[in-house]
This record gives sequence, C-alpha cells and structure tokens, in this order.
Amino acid sequence: MRDEHQHQHHKNLSDILSQLIVLLEKQELEQALVEKQHTPHQDLVQSLVKKKNVTQLQQKVQQLHPADVAFILERLPLNQRKKIWDLVNVEHYGAILLEVSDGVRESLIADMAEHEIIVAAKHLDSDEIADLVPDLPRDIVFDLLTSLDSENRDQVQKVMIFPEGTAGALMDFDMVMVREDVTIEVVLRYLRWRKQIPPQTDQLFVVDSHSQLKGLLPLHDLITHPLEKTVAEVMMREPIFFYTNDALREVAEVFERYDLISAPVVNSHQQLVGCIGIDVVLDFVNEQSQKEKFNQVGLHEEEDLFAPIWKSGRNRWVWLALNLMTAFIASRVIGLFEDTIGQLVALATLMPIVASIGGNTGNQTAALIIRGLALKQINGSNFKHLIVKELGISLMNGLLWGAVVGLFAYLIYQNIVLAGLIFSAMILNLLIAALAGVFIPMGLHKVGRDPVMGSSVMLTAITDSMGFFIFLGLATLFI
Amino acid sequence: MRDEHQHQHHKNLSDILSQLIVLLEKQELEQALVEKQHTPHQDLVQSLVKKKNVTQLQQKVQQLHPADVAFILERLPLNQRKKIWDLVNVEHYGAILLEVSDGVRESLIADMAEHEIIVAAKHLDSDEIADLVPDLPRDIVFDLLTSLDSENRDQVQKVMIFPEGTAGALMDFDMVMVREDVTIEVVLRYLRWRKQIPPQTDQLFVVDSHSQLKGLLPLHDLITHPLEKTVAEVMMREPIFFYTNDALREVAEVFERYDLISAPVVNSHQQLVGCIGIDVVLDFVNEQSQKEKFNQVGLHEEEDLFAPIWKSGRNRWVWLALNLMTAFIASRVIGLFEDTIGQLVALATLMPIVASIGGNTGNQTAALIIRGLALKQINGSNFKHLIVKELGISLMNGLLWGAVVGLFAYLIYQNIVLAGLIFSAMILNLLIAALAGVFIPMGLHKVGRDPVMGSSVMLTAITDSMGFFIFLGLATLFI
Repeated sequence: MRDEHQHQHHKNLSDILSQLIVLLEKQELEQALVEKQHTPHQDLVQSLVKKKNVTQLQQKVQQLHPADVAFILERLPLNQRKKIWDLVNVEHYGAILLEVSDGVRESLIADMAEHEIIVAAKHLDSDEIADLVPDLPRDIVFDLLTSLDSENRDQVQKVMIFPEGTAGALMDFDMVMVREDVTIEVVLRYLRWRKQIPPQTDQLFVVDSHSQLKGLLPLHDLITHPLEKTVAEVMMREPIFFYTNDALREVAEVFERYDLISAPVVNSHQQLVGCIGIDVVLDFVNEQSQKEKFNQVGLHEEEDLFAPIWKSGRNRWVWLALNLMTAFIASRVIGLFEDTIGQLVALATLMPIVASIGGNTGNQTAALIIRGLALKQINGSNFKHLIVKELGISLMNGLLWGAVVGLFAYLIYQNIVLAGLIFSAMILNLLIAALAGVFIPMGLHKVGRDPVMGSSVMLTAITDSMGFFIFLGLATLFI
Repeated sequence: MRDEHQHQHHKNLSDILSQLIVLLEKQELEQALVEKQHTPHQDLVQSLVKKKNVTQLQQKVQQLHPADVAFILERLPLNQRKKIWDLVNVEHYGAILLEVSDGVRESLIADMAEHEIIVAAKHLDSDEIADLVPDLPRDIVFDLLTSLDSENRDQVQKVMIFPEGTAGALMDFDMVMVREDVTIEVVLRYLRWRKQIPPQTDQLFVVDSHSQLKGLLPLHDLITHPLEKTVAEVMMREPIFFYTNDALREVAEVFERYDLISAPVVNSHQQLVGCIGIDVVLDFVNEQSQKEKFNQVGLHEEEDLFAPIWKSGRNRWVWLALNLMTAFIASRVIGLFEDTIGQLVALATLMPIVASIGGNTGNQTAALIIRGLALKQINGSNFKHLIVKELGISLMNGLLWGAVVGLFAYLIYQNIVLAGLIFSAMILNLLIAALAGVFIPMGLHKVGRDPVMGSSVMLTAITDSMGFFIFLGLATLFI
C-alpha cells in the first residue's frame, strides 16, 4: 500500500517542471565549463561539482509525489529524463512506472537493472504488479514472480489471466469484507482495530461464508445509522456488480450513469473476487479518448513525444501506405478520363472541390454515427430514419453549395455546361458521402471492428474516387 | 436531495429500451387498428385501449432510475420520446433533465409547461438548478427564482455568476463541515444525529469560525482513528483545493493525477464555498472528449441524432463554407497551371496524391502537438527538438514513399522526368506538412484558441494548395 499523505500535492506542476529544466540546463553548462578549464585537481573539482548538482536535484525530486514525478518525466527529452529517473528513490519506482504513459514506461524500464525492477515491484500491490508485467522483459517476469510470496503470486497470476480491457484485468484485491449478521458497532470497532482501510474505499463488501456477495455497506450508512443495527438491516441489497469479464467500456458507462465510486467484481459463481474503483475508470476514459484521437490519424497512442525519429517515423508507415493506396486508386480513376481532361483542362482544376467536400460531409455523418453507436443510440427501429435524414441533409446542402460552386465555375470559365456539371456532381457526391458516412461505421461495427479506426480512410477513398468519377464521367458524357 | 436507493440499477439498458420500443410500436399499431374499425361506442373503445396502453408503459417507466430514463429518452425519435416523457413523474423531471444531453434537454423543455418546469426545479439542489437555468426560457427563469426560498435563490445566483467551465459553476453546496477542536467521537455522534450525509461524501471539511478551510477529514480516517483524538490531530492539513475560477480542465487533471474523489472549492479569501466531486469531473471529461471529436469535423456537440433535417443541415453550414473556401483556393492554385496540365495531362492524374499524403502526415504531426499542448508536454526548451524531429520524420518518409510514388508514376507513364518530379514534390510537401503540423496548433494555442478546432482545416488548406503548387510548379520548370 502506498502512503498518499507523505508528499505535498501540487496544483500547478508546470512551474516545478520549468525550475527543474533550468536547473538541469544550468548544471549541464557548469559541468561543461569545469571540463574545459584546466585547473589543478580537475578530477576532484569535477566530481565535487557533480555531487553538488546531484544533491540539489535530488532534494527537489524526492519531495515530489510519484504522480508528479511521472508528470515531469513525461515532459523531458530522453537524456534529461534519465537523469531525473536516476535520482528517484527506488521504492517509488513502481508507483511512478504505473503513472507514466506506455511509451515513457518503456523508455524507463529499458534503463533499469533487473534487481531494480524487482525491488520496484515489491512496493506495489499485486494488481499493480499485474499491470506492469506486460511491459517487462520476459526473463525478468519469471524472476519477479518467484520472488513474491505465494498469496501475492497467486493474485498476480489471477489478474494476468483476464484479457486487457476487462474488469478482471484492472480490479483491486484490497477491500474490506464484513458479514451481514454483525452490528454496525462491531464493524466500526473492527475498522478502528485495523487502523487503516484501502484508499478510495467508499463502501464495505458484505459476503457470506462462501464469499458470495450479499450487499454493500457504504461508509455513509455506516456512520449515520444507529450502532445497534445489523449490517443486514442497513446494507444496500442488489447492488450493481460486475463480472470479471465485463468490458471496461461498459463498466465506465455504468459508473458514469449511476455516479459510482467503486463497485464489486464477482466471478461466475457470484463470489466476490475484487473491486474496481473510479480512479481506474477515469484513467480508462482518458486513455480511450486519447487513443481514439490518435487512431483516427493512424498513430499509436503510446507514441512518446521524445521517441527517436526512426521509431516514430516507422510508426506512421502503415497509415501512410494505406492512404497512399487510396490516393493511388483515386488517381487511377482520374487516369480513366485523361482524354476528357485533355479536351477541357478546367475539369482538372475543379475536380478536387467535388472530392474534398464529399470527404468533409461524409466525415460529419460518420462522426454522428460513431457517437450513436458508442452511446448505443442506434438500433434497428431508428436506422431507416437516420439514413433518410442524412440523405435529406445531403440533398439540401448539395443544392445549396452545389449552386455556389456552380456559380463560381461559371464566373471563372463562362461555361454553363461546366457549371451544370459541377452542380450535379456535388449533389451526387454528397448523397454518396452520406450513405458512406452511415454504412461504413455501421459495417465496421457489425463485423466487430472499432468504427473510429478505419472509417475515415475508407470514407475518403470512396468520396475521392467517386467524386472524380462522377464529375469526370458526367463531363465525358456531356462535353 | 435525490434518493439514489429507490430505483433498481440496470447494467444493461439496451434490453429495456428494446422492450419499450416494441411496446410503443405495438401500441401505435393497436390504436391505428381501433381507429379504423367502425364499431359501436368507438370513442369509448379508443379511450379504453389508450388507457390500458398508458398504464402498461407507465409501470415500466416509473420503476426506472432517472439516469436510465435519460438514457432511453436520448435514444428515441422525437414522437416516441415525447410519449415516454409524458409518463414520467413530475418529481423526476428535474433529475432527468440534468442527465440528458443538451440537444435532448432542449427538445424536452420545449414540450413542458411553465408550472411543470417550476415543479421540476423544486426537486433539485440549488447547484443543479443553476445548471439547468441556461437552457430555460428567460421569462421562466425569473418566475423560478422568485419561487425559491431566499437561501436557495442566493446559492443559485452565486453559481450562475461563474463562467461555464470553471469550478465555481459546477460546485456543490451540500457538504458536511466540522471544527478542528472537537473529537472524533463528537463528529461521529453528530453524523449519526444528522441521519444522512450528501451522497458521494468521502470527506468532511474542517473550517474555522470565519469559514476558512483548515483541512480535510476523510471518512477513512474518521472510522479508523481512536475516538478520543481531535479532528485537528487526524485531519489532512494543506489539502488540495480549488478556487471558484479554476478551469475545470485543470481540476480534472489534478483529480486524475492524485486520484481524488472530492475537493473543496474556496473563494479568494480562502473561505470554503463549495465542493466539487468526481462525478462532475467524469461527466466533464466525457463531454470534452465528445466535444473535441465533433468539433474536429465541424459539428456542434449538442447535435441530437433525431433533430429535424433542416436544423441539422444548417448546423453544418459554417464548416462546409469553410472547407469550400479552402477547396476554392486549392482549385485556383491548379488554375494557375492549366497550360502546363494541357501539355501533360498525367499531371492532373498524379497531383491529388501529393496533396493527400501531405494532409495525412500533417494531421499526424498536429495530433501529436495537440496532445502535447493539452498535457503541457511542450515548452520553450523542447520546442526546437520537436521541430527537428518532425522534419526528420518527414524527410525519411518523404524519401521512402516519394520513391514508391515515383516508381508508380514511372511504371504507368514511362516518363522518368515525371517520376523525378513527383518524388521531389512528395518530399517538399511532407516537409511543409510537418512544419504546418507543428506551427498551426502551436499558433492557435498561443493566440488562445482551441487547437483541436481549426487545425485540420487550416492544415489541409496549406498541404493541398502547396502540394498542387509544388508539383505543378516544378512541372512548369522542368517540362
């Protein structure tokens, strides 16, 4: 159990970060200067300066909360990050590794010796160790597990069984259980005897002798009800609980809907095996939103801002290749109509407008549908309604903005046929964009893929290619 | 204070939603059938059928938790939504209005009579009323405020002063305060005498006679420390607190970093004026992430999936106009080179590739920078490092993918000059995309705008126009 009270909390860490950076840079300068000077006893002076500098930094770093150290490490380039990391107390290593983002964690672990990793893990709860394990080198995991006592090892292995993104994988084992036949007074005496309860406990778990969950006893009720009442009389029966394999997405939804702080996790026999807290849910929600934003543009969410060029560059290859492929296809569509373009070059000038507006409106529709799917707002009975609505919007906007573009084309080229062509092409491509915006995310969702990820690429591939095809195809017919 | 215990909680609401929809549709059919049949006493039969149907639905709806009714209302088209809303107990109106999204709230309030709104508000806490006020018609707000008792009215008005998005605007007044010189035993006796404390209370607030915040007394410590200790001996001194005008974004960050459940809010004299809970923070985080996703494609986050076509269509105009403008500009850039295209139509076929890959890589860089800005990872000392890194990645990817595209061009057109042209244009446009991806979000951030909103449009405008300009410009020089 980490003690949360020993460090000062900081509302504004940016100041501390700036101070540290100034200190680091000053020290780098100072050391460079000492190294350049040729004084007697230079080695001694160098090591003295270094020692002074280290002490100065150490004082600053060691009074920081692990979450704050994590915040700072994430914002430092690799070489400065390593310097600060070396000054952290080994006992805080574990807590900090849990707090930093995946990319930064990787860079820190790469710098640690095996015994440091094992000591770091010793200071963590078993559920926290299980969170770290996937990021550790394989050979260390074995040594780490054998170094734990058997209860902890069992718990770590239990958590590791559950797939990522489930309640089981992130549940906590640290909770207070009580029986339903004791009185409030007995419970209070028990808690006072324990002297501490897990942080973020907002309720006790009422179980029977077979570990089956019978109810929940919120601390609220514990301290507002008469001492002589029994737990059974006061507890919440039929509480919200989760199964170990419930998806965290669902868990987060329920926490938000009912404003929960913590909830029990049970196995398939309804036995209490752990609990899940709002801190885990909040981290998950933040991570999800980050992940989606990054996935939309084909980035790994773990990408560390300070990762080396080679690594970052390679991370982006799949995305580039994918987009290049759709651009190739669109380009081949244009290739079909090179003769027509040769007759009227203005077509080449105007065609990107049709394609680009199609992409924009399609992405709007897709964003609405993706949200609707995530919030479970879309079902069989309103699906038809949605399609009609999106087609209606496209028609309306196509008529309006198609006319604007047509007018623009006419003013520049004084060619009424060309104006009519682009007007019609805009309307048709907006209708296609609306259909693509509805069906692509729905389709991805139906086959069990995340609609956030592929929608935009597939959609742009369609609206670009179809935009060129419709506009140039119509031109071939009418010019 | 709403009682959270009176309704059953549902982990899976989709089933209930489906049942309700089936029931609604069955009833619509039934009523249509009765209306068509010409039986004696038809009016009577009709009203009986209607009554039976209403009772059936009412039973289902009234046993639902307000948060669940909100969930269901958000997923129903307007006519069915209205039917369910009419069956809700007036006393739950307020709680439900607080839960639904802005767009749906608007549609519900539009259907309510003034006296219903006032009754609905009566069942809410003053901070909750203040949340509703901005969505109510102006004339009703005045009547509502005068209908409140003076204490509540003062509180509502106090909250309404604070701008949206600050801690003050969303703080709660309902909290338990204690003095530091009393013993734990006295506090416990006081709480048991109160019989209830606000939901989600995880700590008591220790204040002096001038309402100045002295510390926090977590319920944990209250129930695990010896009864004879004083509050002063047990409480957390120097707790994290927020000022009324602190931004919720900052509040959320601190809650996440330190795993807080609630925190005190003070005025500029350090007097305790309210508290802010994790439920508010979680709602805010979810809303923010939703809002950003929608803003990225130019949608209002309030857009109701079931809003009428006309309204939804109009919502998208600004975005379309903006994008049309950038498309026009890109088109005019192409227009400059019509002669060159006339000489070699293949240029028209290949040019969208250069533009589109530029947009893709630029958006990747921008996403990284936007996250970096949000997480405060970017500062003066690492800014240069970032630019060099992004330019390096662009150069590497430009060389690689430019070669791929060049080869593709050569295979199709057997023209080595054309291949060289597109190779060079790709590299140059990727470098420009990297610079745009860094400087556009940084610039928007610097002038105090949200970098999520405008970045993508501005970036695409630059990468499209420059892509065409570089490729066609080089072609004009070398062909």
